[in-house]
Amino acid sequence: MKIGVFDSGIGGMTVLKELIKTFPNENFVYYGDTANVPYGTKSSSQIRNLCQEAAYSLKTKNLDVLVIACNTASAIALDVFKKILFPLPVFGVVEPGVSAVVEQFQKLPFDPQRRILILGTKATIKSQIYSLEIRKAIAFNQISEQSCPLAVPMIEEGWVNSPILLSTLQEYVKTYQHDKIPGIALLACTHYPWAIGAFQKVLPNWNIVDSAKAVAEFLLRQQFSLSQKNDLTVQWFFTDPEAVTPMALNDFQQMGLTIAL
Amino acid sequence: MKIGVFDSGIGGMTVLKELIKTFPNENFVYYGDTANVPYGTKSSSQIRNLCQEAAYSLKTKNLDVLVIACNTASAIALDVFKKILFPLPVFGVVEPGVSAVVEQFQKLPFDPQRRILILGTKATIKSQIYSLEIRKAIAFNQISEQSCPLAVPMIEEGWVNSPILLSTLQEYVKTYQHDKIPGIALLACTHYPWAIGAFQKVLPNWNIVDSAKAVAEFLLRQQFSLSQKNDLTVQWFFTDPEAVTPMALNDFQQMGLTIAL
Repeated sequence: MKIGVFDSGIGGMTVLKELIKTFPNENFVYYGDTANVPYGTKSSSQIRNLCQEAAYSLKTKNLDVLVIACNTASAIALDVFKKILFPLPVFGVVEPGVSAVVEQFQKLPFDPQRRILILGTKATIKSQIYSLEIRKAIAFNQISEQSCPLAVPMIEEGWVNSPILLSTLQEYVKTYQHDKIPGIALLACTHYPWAIGAFQKVLPNWNIVDSAKAVAEFLLRQQFSLSQKNDLTVQWFFTDPEAVTPMALNDFQQMGLTIAL
Repeated sequence: MKIGVFDSGIGGMTVLKELIKTFPNENFVYYGDTANVPYGTKSSSQIRNLCQEAAYSLKTKNLDVLVIACNTASAIALDVFKKILFPLPVFGVVEPGVSAVVEQFQKLPFDPQRRILILGTKATIKSQIYSLEIRKAIAFNQISEQSCPLAVPMIEEGWVNSPILLSTLQEYVKTYQHDKIPGIALLACTHYPWAIGAFQKVLPNWNIVDSAKAVAEFLLRQQFSLSQKNDLTVQWFFTDPEAVTPMALNDFQQMGLTIAL
């Protein structure tokens, strides 16, 4: 099976990594629009235009399924990909993230004071798509959304274990740290799993839902027909290869995969 | 006179502000490529393509002079603007910044241990244009360059007085803080003047050269024929108006100017 993974930049690599762990025998195509990253600060119409261009380019790759591993694009332009690539099955990160949060919520004893907290980029949070979708699934109103605009640039700087990242996240979540009942926090940005340790530190005892893992689990449930022999391959496409942050490549080199830029 | 000011985003507004103070009776055109900001993390060829598009668009604005108020574009694509807009006089921020540093250096008593430190985005620092140009002007080798990739996103977040910005800058300049002789630091990014107080705090006693002021002083020396009556106007063009950070507009509202997006 040929699985496409689209992201505005390198963030979707956290999703790719989880997908490779879950589907270790498949062929992957990673498409990063590094010439136009970040999407999270752009207007909706601009984001939709960029996704349209990417979709036409992905149409030529003979995919069997496409994962939009970018929260901003999933929130704002999933229909653009679906329309252009029809009848290809296209999945965003929103549906898997929502499912994972709802599942976590239903596992825990019900408490009206328990908070569901969505953390993401400005554009994702502004869209409120996660709150809307979670409210469709469960009758629960204690849902908060918080944008963390500096988290992505700090992660790209490689400061995932830095006290500066901790102070920054602390600043973003300070309203929620005094909740008596530990809440459920969804990392609704594909960069954030790289810094999951820092998020857990500023929200101790909270249930942190990793959106990259959620996507892989969600795709596994779709019961695609998988390859029986081990022929894992990854093809890489970047709209600006020079703009790929080296830190993004480490995980794959550790997996024995190389990235030709 | 109609003065054009180009930037990849909103950073050039620090230059525009200084230009308005210095030329209070002129007409200004501000062009911010907010659909493609930031330039500082993109490859040179990508930056040159974007500047080409911007130059063709600026060609229609009947300018008398154009200021490229973006360090990355000045370092990498000044020739692109000059070629397309010929014979329009086009000035970047590099030449004025270099002049201001050299002037400051010559004012201070000579000391071989005094350091000249260039602070900017990754792309500007990678280009080494400031070191090269300063070395052409003065026979002096104690020149260091340091990129501060998180400074721009933090300033755009409005954290100019935050202890987190201070810790971040501290991290970037820690090698230079122990210099016995206070050096000269050039803020070679048009965003940085918004946080000049923070830069001064992490480099106490240093001479901080503000590139926005340097550009205005440089342009004043060109002896253009200026308007005698007060008819200050600013026309704004943004390739993605929704992506304009509100903090950028405050300075102009305080000047009594409004920005129609």
